[in-house]
Amino acid sequence: SRYEYVKQYEQDATLLPGCFIVVRVDGKGFTKFSELHGFEKPNDKRALDLMDRCACEVLREFSDVRMGYGVSDEYSFVLAPSTALYGRRTSKIVSVLTSFFTASYVRWWGEHMGADAPLRATPAFDGRAVCYPNAATLRDYLSWRQADCHINNQYNTPYWCLVKSGATPSEAQRTLAGSDAGFKNELLFSRFGINYNELPEQFRKGSVVVRARERFVAKVREDGTAVERERGRVAVLHADIIGDAFWTERPETLAP
Amino acid sequence: SRYEYVKQYEQDATLLPGCFIVVRVDGKGFTKFSELHGFEKPNDKRALDLMDRCACEVLREFSDVRMGYGVSDEYSFVLAPSTALYGRRTSKIVSVLTSFFTASYVRWWGEHMGADAPLRATPAFDGRAVCYPNAATLRDYLSWRQADCHINNQYNTPYWCLVKSGATPSEAQRTLAGSDAGFKNELLFSRFGINYNELPEQFRKGSVVVRARERFVAKVREDGTAVERERGRVAVLHADIIGDAFWTERPETLAP
Amino acid sequence: SRYEYVKQYEQDATLLPGCFIVVRVDGKGFTKFSELHGFEKPNDKRALDLMDRCACEVLREFSDVRMGYGVSDEYSFVLAPSTALYGRRTSKIVSVLTSFFTASYVRWWGEHMGADAPLRATPAFDGRAVCYPNAATLRDYLSWRQADCHINNQYNTPYWCLVKSGATPSEAQRTLAGSDAGFKNELLFSRFGINYNELPEQFRKGSVVVRARERFVAKVREDGTAVERERGRVAVLHADIIGDAFWTERPETLAP
Amino acid sequence: SRYEYVKQYEQDATLLPGCFIVVRVDGKGFTKFSELHGFEKPNDKRALDLMDRCACEVLREFSDVRMGYGVSDEYSFVLAPSTALYGRRTSKIVSVLTSFFTASYVRWWGEHMGADAPLRATPAFDGRAVCYPNAATLRDYLSWRQADCHINNQYNTPYWCLVKSGATPSEAQRTLAGSDAGFKNELLFSRFGINYNELPEQFRKGSVVVRARERFVAKVREDGTAVERERGRVAVLHADIIGDAFWTERPETLAP
Ligand SMILES: Nc1nc2c(ncn2[C@H]2C[C@H](O)[C@@H](COP(=O)(O)OP(=O)(O)OP(=O)(O)O)O2)c(=O)[nH]1
Ligand SMILES: Nc1nc2c(ncn2[C@H]2C[C@H](O)[C@@H](COP(=O)(O)OP(=O)(O)OP(=O)(O)O)O2)c(=O)[nH]1
Ligand SMILES: Nc1nc2c(ncn2[C@H]2C[C@H](O)[C@@H](COP(=O)(O)OP(=O)(O)OP(=O)(O)O)O2)c(=O)[nH]1
Ligand SMILES: Nc1nc2c(ncn2[C@H]2C[C@H](O)[C@@H](COP(=O)(O)OP(=O)(O)OP(=O)(O)O)O2)c(=O)[nH]1
Ligand SMILES: O=P(O)(O)OP(=O)(O)OP(=O)(O)O
Ligand SMILES: O=P(O)(O)OP(=O)(O)OP(=O)(O)O
Ligand SMILES: O=P(O)(O)OP(=O)(O)OP(=O)(O)O
Ligand SMILES: O=P(O)(O)OP(=O)(O)OP(=O)(O)O
Ligand SMILES: [Mg+2]
Ligand SMILES: [Mg+2]
Ligand SMILES: [Mg+2]
Ligand SMILES: [Mg+2]
Ligand SMILES: [Mg+2]
Ligand SMILES: [Mg+2]
Ligand SMILES: [Mg+2]
Ligand SMILES: [Mg+2]
Ligand SMILES: [Mg+2]
Ligand SMILES: [Mg+2]
Ligand SMILES: [Mg+2]
Ligand SMILES: [Mg+2]
Repeated sequence: SRYEYVKQYEQDATLLPGCFIVVRVDGKGFTKFSELHGFEKPNDKRALDLMDRCACEVLREFSDVRMGYGVSDEYSFVLAPSTALYGRRTSKIVSVLTSFFTASYVRWWGEHMGADAPLRATPAFDGRAVCYPNAATLRDYLSWRQADCHINNQYNTPYWCLVKSGATPSEAQRTLAGSDAGFKNELLFSRFGINYNELPEQFRKGSVVVRARERFVAKVREDGTAVERERGRVAVLHADIIGDAFWTERPETLAP
Repeated sequence: SRYEYVKQYEQDATLLPGCFIVVRVDGKGFTKFSELHGFEKPNDKRALDLMDRCACEVLREFSDVRMGYGVSDEYSFVLAPSTALYGRRTSKIVSVLTSFFTASYVRWWGEHMGADAPLRATPAFDGRAVCYPNAATLRDYLSWRQADCHINNQYNTPYWCLVKSGATPSEAQRTLAGSDAGFKNELLFSRFGINYNELPEQFRKGSVVVRARERFVAKVREDGTAVERERGRVAVLHADIIGDAFWTERPETLAP
Repeated sequence: SRYEYVKQYEQDATLLPGCFIVVRVDGKGFTKFSELHGFEKPNDKRALDLMDRCACEVLREFSDVRMGYGVSDEYSFVLAPSTALYGRRTSKIVSVLTSFFTASYVRWWGEHMGADAPLRATPAFDGRAVCYPNAATLRDYLSWRQADCHINNQYNTPYWCLVKSGATPSEAQRTLAGSDAGFKNELLFSRFGINYNELPEQFRKGSVVVRARERFVAKVREDGTAVERERGRVAVLHADIIGDAFWTERPETLAP
Repeated sequence: SRYEYVKQYEQDATLLPGCFIVVRVDGKGFTKFSELHGFEKPNDKRALDLMDRCACEVLREFSDVRMGYGVSDEYSFVLAPSTALYGRRTSKIVSVLTSFFTASYVRWWGEHMGADAPLRATPAFDGRAVCYPNAATLRDYLSWRQADCHINNQYNTPYWCLVKSGATPSEAQRTLAGSDAGFKNELLFSRFGINYNELPEQFRKGSVVVRARERFVAKVREDGTAVERERGRVAVLHADIIGDAFWTERPETLAP
């Protein structure tokens, strides 16, 4: 039609070839959303499990997504440097991944949050794509998110203990202001009987979603011996991803 | 932390100031998704109503969205040239609108599709933002979408009548190949008793979501007289947006 | 060859269709460059004429450039909204125009600066392209540059008079700090006998390069009567471009 | 001023951190320009020396440029992955380097082309910047250019011998069409007495501009012994850059 020329106004930005692509989604206004739905403070296991579930769905849907890392209301997904997904068009990749994550969040809400927490508002996520040119910067990116998880959790845990036990928000803040990890752990233990290191790893380390190689019995031969094969199964871990161990065990994650 | 430098790798593209921004979302793989859920062919009123509902939600949530136009598995949203939403950052705008639309789609699925059509797959939408520098090109954009709606519907209606009445897809295709509107309308009428122009406007024109100005009685004074105010209520129309009438009635939609 | 894949790493950004494109070039480190070549302060007519000459060359070389506006060490060129020059690729347009302007600057240096001012360093210009979606913003852009010209010149003229007559830079600065136009003009007149409004318009208004339509005698018929035609000749003006007069005389400059 | 808002329309694209940046400049319409100035065919030593000279000037002016590679009317410059030049703004980097190269070309034209070849037209170069995320892709980029140099030269040398000795362009083309290197070298030798491998390396390999580390006597001590220091001097080589040798000798060129 004579109107078709308007299609030319689309400016398809693409993501530089040869780079890892990270897509990070983050809950829109989840301070309010978590309040409205009575999320446990500072960590709601049901809500975090729901996030992890959505991430698993993403890995199952998009074979080019190598892994995910999640904390709080956010999840980061790592795409292979060689991915040709949507011709590496930025908007396509960002929008489809964010949309699929969001749809999963609403779809599986009931299953994870339980019957007594019906959805009272429409959740939304923002999304962005960032290129990292090599494995070192990609690992620094993921370390950044996990270090953030640790720092926030170390602060939020005693903070909410104090507030729940009667302190005002500003009192709790003053008690913790400028204190180091030792002080916070000590306070947690002496006043609330909580050993920080025994808190769930999901809270302290966040969640890592990977494709775990697993051997399985594909069929049994007539003579009764088993034929084994390998398959990639999506799995959630709460592992340290700052150190080297995680990566030396999974070299394929950082491959070109 | 020492990892924070990775934040600098984010390249925040923005949308040119002074231009209308159109965000178009489009169902990912809806050929298959509509099949899986038994959508009526070629138009499923429940599915279209669900799309319109989601668009209404978008207009209620984002005050900078001036209007929407939807057809098939897609919806276009028009943002004011002056909008400062998310600093006009492309990824933020595209991802949040697409995410919110998607969440609404899943959230309100049951209400529109009915109990006998449970969600069997996770729907997702792609999203993109396009700048149009002036009202004329914006109108051409919307005309492009509505002309597309018309052309597709004029073809799809007799096509599915033929197929439903026993023709094979390739027979139906051959019958219609190269024919003009007159021929298709005649065929529809003579063979299926359908008057094309009496089909629902939602199918023939698509859906327009607008903020309708309505006067309402804000309060009643002591002397019994009414204090009237104006408010914008989101409404769905199935109007022609190619001609001038729609626009002359709503000059604010094209304002700077 | 097996190396050709590297070509895919080129990310060709383009300039939004339908917008005016402004390419602005600006001398790199001209504070030092003008010093090194003994430019008259604050305005060196030879140097400004050289800039104007280069701009004329640009208009002669690139037919899609509608006009130019220059002040100090910078020049802005306006390209038609409809231009398809280099497919509107940003880097191509910016680099070729900047390069051509620079080459002209060196090529015609001697002709304008005279034999006693040989080139002692390699001049360079930065370049950028900016899109303006309509005539109003384009005019505001040009008004911005001309207003800047005026403000700077009104300050620089008395400043250099003071310094040349023995004041230290900081004394001159203090004398002028925070003063209004009236004060500066008064000072210029009373102390240096200079009537600001009689200074060359090139200094006060900058330079506008346009395609002037001129009628000329194309041939003379046998009967002695003349056949007149119109042609566009590039001309330099020192006109006000903030007011409407300039534009109402040249409507084609702002055409789509 | 009230016009300053227009500055916000500048959209400063930047080049991804952590990547090598290649800026390639290429002569605009040099088919015609070389003809107009009577360049020797297919290789004009004066013109190539002028290009090399300009590249040397670029390396001397911009300390972040690690090396250059030139062939025909083009030159590629490699910037360090860590460069913060102009905040890695694309247009600034492309325009300033292209402009400086161009200015050098005009400035040093006379010195290299000789008195009998005055400049008859204004030369211009296009420029672009491309990011390469690692040393391997950067080397592939440079190999691409040098392989191109070789292929073109192997064809152009016999082609112009044939044409100069009386063949029409289409005859020469037919003679060479589809032939391999052996055939072309044999033809060169048997018909024109030229041993391809003895042609100047500048023609066969192109030019590499590097910062050569050289030791020099910084001062002589009272006791007569010398104090040696190292400095980087810009040097032109005509070396192979496809193989490893060049790079193992200069590891700093590929450093992060
Ligand atoms: N109670 C509770 N709150 C959580 C949990 N996970 C996340 N949140 C809340 C805490 C924070 O207020 C918020 C995440 O912070 P953000 O920086 O993403 O801010 P927010 O989402 O409010 O705004 P945004 O739209 O992302 O700018 O979500 C949880 O498990 N329990
Ligand atoms: N039966 C039925 N199908 C519909 C209806 N609305 C949309 N669809 C189907 C028809 C098309 O096959 C499809 C929309 O075409 P698209 O070009 O968007 O293709 P699709 O979504 O399959 O792929 P995509 O991921 O967008 O590239 O959705 C409806 O109301 N009823
Ligand atoms: N004496 C003299 N100086 C001039 C004339 N035209 C321009 N200049 C000088 C005055 C300013 O110091 C300089 C232009 O200011 P800019 O803001 O462009 O700074 P500059 O070029 O030094 O640095 P840049 O590389 O553009 O960031 O050029 C002139 O006609 N006479
Ligand atoms: N005779 C002669 N010609 C040369 C020499 N170096 C380059 N050239 C010419 C040969 C080619 O026609 C032209 C370079 O090819 P390009 O693909 O860059 O084309 P051209 O510059 O004409 O167009 P462009 O503006 O780059 O698209 O320059 C030389 O040393 N001698
Ligand atoms: O943590 P981020 O990247 O989301 O940082 P922010 O401060 O939330 O900023 P924005 O979401 O606006 O990029
Ligand atoms: O109608 P569109 O714009 O979605 O066109 P398309 O052919 O689907 O292409 P794409 O979605 O890949 O831009
Ligand atoms: O006047 P401009 O736009 O050149 O502004 P600037 O302050 O020189 O900044 P830059 O040249 O770095 O854009
Ligand atoms: O060799 P290049 O990259 O200059 O390739 P081209 O075919 O000249 O194309 P363009 O200069 O338009 O990018
Ligand atoms: Mg954020
Ligand atoms: Mg959030
Ligand atoms: Mg968050
Ligand atoms: Mg599509
Ligand atoms: Mg679709
Ligand atoms: Mg569609
Ligand atoms: Mg500047
Ligand atoms: Mg300057
Ligand atoms: Mg300047
Ligand atoms: Mg080219
Ligand atoms: Mg060329
Ligand atoms: Mg070339």
